[in-house]
Amino acid sequence: MHILITGGAGFIGSHLCDRLLEDGHNVVVLDNLVTGSLDNIAHITQDKNFRFINQNVAEYIDLQDPVDAVMHFASPASPSQTAPNGYLQLPIQTLKAGALGTLNALGVAKKYNSIFMLASTSEVYGDPLVHPQTEDYWGNVNPIGPRSVYDEAKRFAEALTMAYHRTHNVKTRIVRIFNTYGPRMAIDDGRVVPNFICQALRNDPLTIYGDGSQTRSFCYVSDLIDGIILLLNSDITSPTNIGNPHEITILEFAQTINRLINNPAGTILENNRTQGDPEQRKPNITKANQMLSWHPKVKLEKGLAETISFFKNQLDD
Amino acid sequence: MHILITGGAGFIGSHLCDRLLEDGHNVVVLDNLVTGSLDNIAHITQDKNFRFINQNVAEYIDLQDPVDAVMHFASPASPSQTAPNGYLQLPIQTLKAGALGTLNALGVAKKYNSIFMLASTSEVYGDPLVHPQTEDYWGNVNPIGPRSVYDEAKRFAEALTMAYHRTHNVKTRIVRIFNTYGPRMAIDDGRVVPNFICQALRNDPLTIYGDGSQTRSFCYVSDLIDGIILLLNSDITSPTNIGNPHEITILEFAQTINRLINNPAGTILENNRTQGDPEQRKPNITKANQMLSWHPKVKLEKGLAETISFFKNQLDD
Repeated sequence: MHILITGGAGFIGSHLCDRLLEDGHNVVVLDNLVTGSLDNIAHITQDKNFRFINQNVAEYIDLQDPVDAVMHFASPASPSQTAPNGYLQLPIQTLKAGALGTLNALGVAKKYNSIFMLASTSEVYGDPLVHPQTEDYWGNVNPIGPRSVYDEAKRFAEALTMAYHRTHNVKTRIVRIFNTYGPRMAIDDGRVVPNFICQALRNDPLTIYGDGSQTRSFCYVSDLIDGIILLLNSDITSPTNIGNPHEITILEFAQTINRLINNPAGTILENNRTQGDPEQRKPNITKANQMLSWHPKVKLEKGLAETISFFKNQLDD
Repeated sequence: MHILITGGAGFIGSHLCDRLLEDGHNVVVLDNLVTGSLDNIAHITQDKNFRFINQNVAEYIDLQDPVDAVMHFASPASPSQTAPNGYLQLPIQTLKAGALGTLNALGVAKKYNSIFMLASTSEVYGDPLVHPQTEDYWGNVNPIGPRSVYDEAKRFAEALTMAYHRTHNVKTRIVRIFNTYGPRMAIDDGRVVPNFICQALRNDPLTIYGDGSQTRSFCYVSDLIDGIILLLNSDITSPTNIGNPHEITILEFAQTINRLINNPAGTILENNRTQGDPEQRKPNITKANQMLSWHPKVKLEKGLAETISFFKNQLDD
């Protein structure tokens, strides 16, 4: 297949490129490198089946050749209040990537009768009142809060995707991606995984916002990519959760990282939680399990070891 | 003031034009007449303070002169499943009016440092789990249902409006408009008010979908316009409900119309409710009341009499 990946130079997008190239596909990446990085794709830029276009997805996409699939993964995605590339620092770009970007990417899919996959997010559930979240839960999102630039952009993108499916018969896939971690997360991403690992590698105490009792569930990136490929090749039009339901408190998570890195500095609690940061979020993956025979395989300690190794190299460079 | 009104040839937009012209302002209407009509503005097109631009708000807006306020009222708005101009028949246009239209209108406001008002809707509350709805209720919206083309477009528009306020200091107003009725509703609009009145004027029985126990609250258009003008002149950045909290069952409403028109044909119940049609929706207007000293004044029977008179003329033409 010939596949267009918007945001293909990002954390998840670049892993997707690797897998699709390995599987013998032809990959075109469109990325403006605002949150993605050429480092993530440096090892494949010379591949004869790979092409890179430096462009903002919010601008009209003029491909030279038809594609069989369009995978729209371009968007800032970190909720960090301080990271330079978090969506709170890029509010209007994030809204545009979700609305104009999805419109442009759908336009390509419609033109070439391609499969269209939207990278959606567990953030469409907002601060959920239902646990764990199934795909039919409508969510609890503040439409006017600071985080709405991401949450509402993705909800809009889902609505637009379904409208193109219903109106133009575009073959759509919507993956709702839950917390994912692994090599190529941006070191200044501001999310808990790079933060904790970098602090631990520097033998600093790990900073926990709140009392550490809030839970998260982390999916290793190779498991996510498995799910995405299965979904792409399925005929499931409606949204599908892909994430790891194994729940862990932030405190336990910090302690695990400290143990793996032999960091003696422990943890330190800070009061100021991020506004709108959900207390708990955990996918119900029954749908992916039943319809795609998918389930996450990589154990947390194994995934963390790979990720730690990546950040170690980054810090040594 | 010089004021741009997108959707100014629509039901609410055209009443807004009338009021603003009466108040001595200069009005530019931008409308592509997909759901609006030249009939609604025929009486003001020769006014020296009025100008009409036939354009889709989803395309770049190139005004010749600066404006002091931009009021973005353009969108299909009828949830009817059958009306030709309902948003279910115009799904992608509706999504574009909400996203690209709001972006373009905000662009004008940013360029000229104008006040920006977004016409939002009670539909951002979806099928609410809280009654009556206050502005801080986050809503219960299905992001992928057929009605999401309107609901999510308006939620996105609110998020974008707040982002322009936070990022570019645009002076924003967001009015969440609840059910409104009055002269100039489109006769084929498919909503309950034109449907009932036209059936009654033809001495047909009024068709009620469901058992008639679902409630609605209807605001007369002049009350809405009062609220909009007060909000425009306020400094309330965050969303403000404008609607009539007087609740009535659909059955009572039908009976009132039959009585006013002396229609002996009564009512007839149909089983098929519209998918996603909320069971109940009623504004909490404490904010508008306290901060704008606004409250609806027009009694239902008075407002209905005006509206009936309008539809009578339409049917006689």
